[in-house]
Amino acid sequence: MNGEIIAIGRELLMGELVDTNTAYFAQELANAGVTVRWASQVGDDIEHLHEAFERALDRSDVIITSGGLGPTSDDLTREAVASVLGEELTVDRDMVSWIEGVFKERGITEMPRTNIKQANIIPSASFLPNPGGTAPGWWVKNNGSDIFLTPGPPREIKRMWNDHIGPAIRQMTGSGVVHTRILRTAGMTEGGIDEVLSDLFGQENPYLGIYAHTNGIELRIIARAATDDDALAMTEPLEAEIRRRLGPTIWGADNDSAASRLGDLLVGSSMTVGVVDSGTGGTVASMLSHVPDHARWFRGSMVTGPGGSPLATPLLESMLGGPAGRTAGAVSEAAAHQMAVNARQLLGADLGIGITPPSADDDEQMKGTIFVGLSSPDGEKVVRGRFYQSADRALPRAAMFVLTEATRALMADEV
Amino acid sequence: MNGEIIAIGRELLMGELVDTNTAYFAQELANAGVTVRWASQVGDDIEHLHEAFERALDRSDVIITSGGLGPTSDDLTREAVASVLGEELTVDRDMVSWIEGVFKERGITEMPRTNIKQANIIPSASFLPNPGGTAPGWWVKNNGSDIFLTPGPPREIKRMWNDHIGPAIRQMTGSGVVHTRILRTAGMTEGGIDEVLSDLFGQENPYLGIYAHTNGIELRIIARAATDDDALAMTEPLEAEIRRRLGPTIWGADNDSAASRLGDLLVGSSMTVGVVDSGTGGTVASMLSHVPDHARWFRGSMVTGPGGSPLATPLLESMLGGPAGRTAGAVSEAAAHQMAVNARQLLGADLGIGITPPSADDDEQMKGTIFVGLSSPDGEKVVRGRFYQSADRALPRAAMFVLTEATRALMADEV
Repeated sequence: MNGEIIAIGRELLMGELVDTNTAYFAQELANAGVTVRWASQVGDDIEHLHEAFERALDRSDVIITSGGLGPTSDDLTREAVASVLGEELTVDRDMVSWIEGVFKERGITEMPRTNIKQANIIPSASFLPNPGGTAPGWWVKNNGSDIFLTPGPPREIKRMWNDHIGPAIRQMTGSGVVHTRILRTAGMTEGGIDEVLSDLFGQENPYLGIYAHTNGIELRIIARAATDDDALAMTEPLEAEIRRRLGPTIWGADNDSAASRLGDLLVGSSMTVGVVDSGTGGTVASMLSHVPDHARWFRGSMVTGPGGSPLATPLLESMLGGPAGRTAGAVSEAAAHQMAVNARQLLGADLGIGITPPSADDDEQMKGTIFVGLSSPDGEKVVRGRFYQSADRALPRAAMFVLTEATRALMADEV
Repeated sequence: MNGEIIAIGRELLMGELVDTNTAYFAQELANAGVTVRWASQVGDDIEHLHEAFERALDRSDVIITSGGLGPTSDDLTREAVASVLGEELTVDRDMVSWIEGVFKERGITEMPRTNIKQANIIPSASFLPNPGGTAPGWWVKNNGSDIFLTPGPPREIKRMWNDHIGPAIRQMTGSGVVHTRILRTAGMTEGGIDEVLSDLFGQENPYLGIYAHTNGIELRIIARAATDDDALAMTEPLEAEIRRRLGPTIWGADNDSAASRLGDLLVGSSMTVGVVDSGTGGTVASMLSHVPDHARWFRGSMVTGPGGSPLATPLLESMLGGPAGRTAGAVSEAAAHQMAVNARQLLGADLGIGITPPSADDDEQMKGTIFVGLSSPDGEKVVRGRFYQSADRALPRAAMFVLTEATRALMADEV
């Protein structure tokens, strides 16, 4: 079953709004067994809308739109569908009463006259309830195609999908299940992974995809089958083969973030973590604090300004102190190790992480190099990475590096 | 001049990625005098790409694409354009050398074989340099239409637009200048601002728009004119009127972030800042560290785990110490004030910021409340905010609140 998504609104073609509805519908449609082949943005222009619906009816079984159902004269989605199907719009009195009720609930006793427009409908359509707003949707059935019209606000759309559109479409497709498994990697380039797994790409089901995100290269296995068990049975051998070839390159799966994965490992071994950070400006702490249960294992972090800033207070000195850290802002294996030891001691943590500032050395091999020290009762380790971009790119990447390296060291029982 | 945007990638039609490139190009094209009439997402499918390019060449003067220029066999944008135009792809040796150079800079001496694909080109195209990645773009001239192919990553695209595509298109359209002025606010709702400024909305040029972002409500003045001076002359009176009505609600403009604006004010009064943070988990420090010149004014931050976690070490006690902070994790005006004083002293900073943990009190008025203390030689202040969402939403919002409140207090000479 082929699907098509049309996002409607002048603001989308002016770039005033990023269209997130298309991605939402695309994912939900895929999960419901519909293959989305086309997606487009169209302005509030009756001719363009007419053309878009005509073409969509010609090539797609399910068409789903967002936007253009407001009360103003700009909102032309209803008019365009009526015109393509050659049907007439009439006002539904029950719907008028319902919209009046929504306004009353909001403390507005008189419904603005323009909102009557939202009670318009055509014979081949029925209303889709919208519990979150005044604009009801439409479900149009025409010659084997189904058109679903929804309003623009993402929050309203999600409820309408979950309550009405999703179940209706699943019934049409008699869709089985789609099982998606994400494997998250660190330490290899996209091209490098592509080479190692090249023979595994290209099959339809289970499908294997590779995507470069800001938080690393991710592999995605998508299996369609009649039941959960069947889909899982298709996914698991492929995952096992990928893990065999990539080994410790894979640090997490599915919704794991580097921070949540580290948290899970810490919980598993009843450990806490503390960070002495001169390299990511608190970004490691911030990422750890985003994990819901971090109260159980995150002890805190000390963050200095960038490397080389004078350490005027005894407190800051103690943070980088000890024989190796005596030179403020040192960028060395020894400094990272000492900072990790200090993190354990000063913050009362089991796993200490120390992060040196990035090297300002002009040398090609050193520029932007940071050292990351890991220290626990079970072992110690220092790794190095290079992040020479501007701060807005380097900080999150460096923090991801720190967290994935700590995770991989815990997984390998190195610390 | 009609424009068309095509975003390419199977992941867009699977809903795995939200397409932000289309909104970016739409805005830039509008600013450069091109009217965008069509935008669509197409999968990595040679037939669909062929169809999309054929239709676009038929109806649009300028076509701009993102995605599908990677090194893998999935990346078919180049192939599709070659096939629509009936031209042959050949490898450009100079481009191969350039790509090899990019890998060398990254410390990879051997370029993966697959990347040679990115050096392919057709006779009617020339390369568009991409300083941010290995995938160069294409500029194709065909029968009066211009096609610009760009890679997928938004960061790479922006540089290519600014350096090459934007100037080329402005030359084609002979477009005058567009002057955009953004005013950033805190402390009022979108509806509240809308009411105060209602009579200023609705005119075409200069146009005034209002947008709710995760980092606050923003006002956007867009003026089109023949010259920079003319555009500025249209913008300035409107800005002055808005500032008169909104006063200290406006904390910054244009590319100011809350952190960069705070940094500018600190530099202006030769001050440094230090943070004792039990409320944003290091997110304030991370935002400050993202500002390029933060070495001049950011002394560092101490970050505890979430409120109520036991303070096992003397160091952590000293951080929250003093009479007011003796109860670990206290959520009160007095605790915030004491933490701000401690921040100045322990971190050797002129401006101290103290952030209490969010209140876990079930009381409707208290739940999620944080207190933010500000302390400097010139004054002291404590403000309160409420952030009761899940961590991934609450932390950035709370950190934005801390930074805009500190900024507004400095602007008002309160600290």
